[in-house]
Amino acid sequence: MNTLHDISWSDYSALPLEEKVPLLARPDGMPFHTLFAQQFGRKQLDGLCALTTKIRFIAKTREGMDFLQSQLSHKRAMIYFTQPSSRTFLSFMSACQILGLRTGEVRDASVSSEFKGESREDSIRTFSSYFDLIIMRTQEKGLAEHMAWALSRSDRPVPIINAGSGKDQHPTQALLDIYTLHRSFEKKGGLRNRTVMYVGDLARGRTVRSLSNLLTNYEGIRHIFVAPEPLQIGQDILDMLKAHGNEYVVTDDMRKYLPKADAVYMTRIQDEWDAAKGDSAKIDTSRFKIGRAEMDMMGPDAILMHPLPRRDEISTDCDSDPRSKYWRQMRNGMWIRTALIASTFDCADMIMAWRQRTM
Amino acid sequence: MNTLHDISWSDYSALPLEEKVPLLARPDGMPFHTLFAQQFGRKQLDGLCALTTKIRFIAKTREGMDFLQSQLSHKRAMIYFTQPSSRTFLSFMSACQILGLRTGEVRDASVSSEFKGESREDSIRTFSSYFDLIIMRTQEKGLAEHMAWALSRSDRPVPIINAGSGKDQHPTQALLDIYTLHRSFEKKGGLRNRTVMYVGDLARGRTVRSLSNLLTNYEGIRHIFVAPEPLQIGQDILDMLKAHGNEYVVTDDMRKYLPKADAVYMTRIQDEWDAAKGDSAKIDTSRFKIGRAEMDMMGPDAILMHPLPRRDEISTDCDSDPRSKYWRQMRNGMWIRTALIASTFDCADMIMAWRQRTM
Amino acid sequence: MNTLHDISWSDYSALPLEEKVPLLARPDGMPFHTLFAQQFGRKQLDGLCALTTKIRFIAKTREGMDFLQSQLSHKRAMIYFTQPSSRTFLSFMSACQILGLRTGEVRDASVSSEFKGESREDSIRTFSSYFDLIIMRTQEKGLAEHMAWALSRSDRPVPIINAGSGKDQHPTQALLDIYTLHRSFEKKGGLRNRTVMYVGDLARGRTVRSLSNLLTNYEGIRHIFVAPEPLQIGQDILDMLKAHGNEYVVTDDMRKYLPKADAVYMTRIQDEWDAAKGDSAKIDTSRFKIGRAEMDMMGPDAILMHPLPRRDEISTDCDSDPRSKYWRQMRNGMWIRTALIASTFDCADMIMAWRQRTM
Repeated sequence: MNTLHDISWSDYSALPLEEKVPLLARPDGMPFHTLFAQQFGRKQLDGLCALTTKIRFIAKTREGMDFLQSQLSHKRAMIYFTQPSSRTFLSFMSACQILGLRTGEVRDASVSSEFKGESREDSIRTFSSYFDLIIMRTQEKGLAEHMAWALSRSDRPVPIINAGSGKDQHPTQALLDIYTLHRSFEKKGGLRNRTVMYVGDLARGRTVRSLSNLLTNYEGIRHIFVAPEPLQIGQDILDMLKAHGNEYVVTDDMRKYLPKADAVYMTRIQDEWDAAKGDSAKIDTSRFKIGRAEMDMMGPDAILMHPLPRRDEISTDCDSDPRSKYWRQMRNGMWIRTALIASTFDCADMIMAWRQRTM
Repeated sequence: MNTLHDISWSDYSALPLEEKVPLLARPDGMPFHTLFAQQFGRKQLDGLCALTTKIRFIAKTREGMDFLQSQLSHKRAMIYFTQPSSRTFLSFMSACQILGLRTGEVRDASVSSEFKGESREDSIRTFSSYFDLIIMRTQEKGLAEHMAWALSRSDRPVPIINAGSGKDQHPTQALLDIYTLHRSFEKKGGLRNRTVMYVGDLARGRTVRSLSNLLTNYEGIRHIFVAPEPLQIGQDILDMLKAHGNEYVVTDDMRKYLPKADAVYMTRIQDEWDAAKGDSAKIDTSRFKIGRAEMDMMGPDAILMHPLPRRDEISTDCDSDPRSKYWRQMRNGMWIRTALIASTFDCADMIMAWRQRTM
Repeated sequence: MNTLHDISWSDYSALPLEEKVPLLARPDGMPFHTLFAQQFGRKQLDGLCALTTKIRFIAKTREGMDFLQSQLSHKRAMIYFTQPSSRTFLSFMSACQILGLRTGEVRDASVSSEFKGESREDSIRTFSSYFDLIIMRTQEKGLAEHMAWALSRSDRPVPIINAGSGKDQHPTQALLDIYTLHRSFEKKGGLRNRTVMYVGDLARGRTVRSLSNLLTNYEGIRHIFVAPEPLQIGQDILDMLKAHGNEYVVTDDMRKYLPKADAVYMTRIQDEWDAAKGDSAKIDTSRFKIGRAEMDMMGPDAILMHPLPRRDEISTDCDSDPRSKYWRQMRNGMWIRTALIASTFDCADMIMAWRQRTM
């Protein structure tokens, strides 16, 4: 972390994203601080997916669980969530527990702002005094990045994992989506040349933006963006795909394209971002939902994903269809976060080398 | 759990209680999902009491504590309490810690309802993705039962323990009451032919209902229900006792019957259930309290119990009387919950077989 | 604890502080219940500082961390904070984790007062049923002391550590301040004959009161109290110092005395205790702040301390100056709390005897 240590905040923050990435990396190329989905190139994604699969395998036995829990039982993690999210919180907490890390937590904005006179930077630096890792989710855009910079200059440069910051970035969500796609197509020829359809609120959901970005690491991906016009994907994402030579379709006709999709990624309407309360309710979203009839239009090997929580975008009738991967996707999040934390603390090689003792 | 897997919710929920019990059981007859006090027959109660006593004994030494903590150190439990109760929460958490389980928690209704659009079923299924056991306490009657059914049909049928649901059921409270009685009379001829007096708000407290029900598993128990008329025990409980051939008395004269009781089970006025605020305050409850004078009327081997929290039903003067068992009763709750979790994960035989290493 | 067991509350509470101390002590002279800073004489402070330094050393290696975590892995601690403080909470939690203790927590006044009819004494006795140590922080002055007395008379006399009670006492804060001074001057001739300057809200901050009190255990300490007149130190503290033969200065001229200080202890304005909201804002505190210019006036070996959280008493410009010890001071809190808990459970000798295995 010498390089991040030596740069001023104004110089650092003026850098383009691709020049920040090496400043945030470990010597092996994996992130030290995990702040953006774009820190993961193809090599990092392949390594992380392989590690995740290995961890899932190891965890199937008692002996394996004991091995995993011994990896980081001497480390402790702070889970600092001033923007609440039970599912992301519990997923990270579980990942820590699987590796034996003890955790402390701030889960409540009111608790964390108890000293109104204290800067958020001082609060987080305080927590870094006690813990070896900080996993943080906040309303403030860019706070995780600023703290990563600030801690790298202190005498306790503990790693930071961004678990969601404002509308901004949620890199581990993108990683679990990639892993779910990877795992689903692993034995069926892999991810290359797949067609991924995204449905719902593409304007405001950060997951689709990050996922489409990460998918440019794979060859020949086609993207189909399905949304009512006011909720369509941003032009910046389309420009980014074009720059990578990726094909895409922008449409409001889900049914027409459903049979062509290898993966259908549903999202909910993010009405918490409505400029005026109830704006979203005025949009007709009835044609952007999946029920039994729509599943029947999907191919036999196609998969159905959702970052959850869902409302009525996917009917509960679909839950027992083997192509529905959203519950598994949720659990994949726990596993890939486990892999990410293991990488951050340099345990990846030890885990990849694990062999079950013969009896 | 094949049987619960194969039945629809409407068919399942129409079953009488006694036909539900085998669907919720493990092969050894102990509950897989613990939902009702009635899942415990005499055999299960005897097994659980013996296991609890063994665990208490093992926990007396460092070596024994280490043994217990190794039992389930590879498992993790979700404690999902949207109806708050610090004492039940901490009792279950302690039970998990004694067996080495790591825990995650939702303790706050507002946190858990953060996504108003998400169904409670989806929330709980999410938590089941991360954890190996769900301990839940909710306002909604029957939610634990519905989730047990739903999870049994999913690809992660993790066990559920009901830690209290509405006015409904609180099976582990009944178990700790039974264990306290069992332990108190174990060396004095056992529970058979004992006279148990219940005092206080018998209409609304679920503990007395469950306890009197479980006591029908023991021979010759006599029941004395002492309450002001508007708070007397329900006719359904009296009918149930009659069907089991148990004798009972319904009275508002505590002092008359005090000398005859082997166990006096005090309860507080549950004014949180008042139809109109303050209704309970209009009832004269002054004759339903225990002080030094009343303890002097009790037999030398009689015991005094209370599920706690108390208000003024038992004077603090009584706390140091050796016949007062309510603090021990509280601690018994931690031990029998430990035994229940151990049974749920098939550790009972291993624990019963434990022998202290000779030095 | 026989002696505390045998005394009534009215007799106990009428005792002067110095006669209470032996009643709260372990056979080795260290506190069993830690309630007041004054329980620590020079011998106890020296022992605790040496243990803290040893623990910091041991914790540098994985092998050492494993050793520390094995010390109390069979014990469990209740952290009962009805007066919230994330930093003190997390510091104690970390201390527990370092020694392997599992923790349960009440962090929220509303949760803990859920049963309005229950006495606080009953609540805490409940928690003592489940845990082996109670760490408590409350608004109520003297509650920790009363509970220590009450538990010593029960059949589960678990130790209590006072983590702050009202305006009253916060003994572990004073300990971490002493340790920070001890550690800073250890290799430079020690603490004797040092000049300590306290700046800020000396009337209401309990840290300065406790620290100046503990410093009378060291020879030849000079005290400089710097504050605007309405926030100056109480006469009782000056009388106490006079009784110990300590020199002191009371002034509002920080800059005049800055060059003479070996340690500058900054504090924030405690406006949460204002009689009328905004009273503190009327006081001119501009001359009681440290920036680069003021640091330049300090000696090259002088140190700058702050109990944190800070507002603007110390400019962030000072953070990277090697004489600024407030972040280290924070971390010292975690280490000395670890040492205190280890002492409470009789692990000090085992830890002091630790030798790294030769490879």
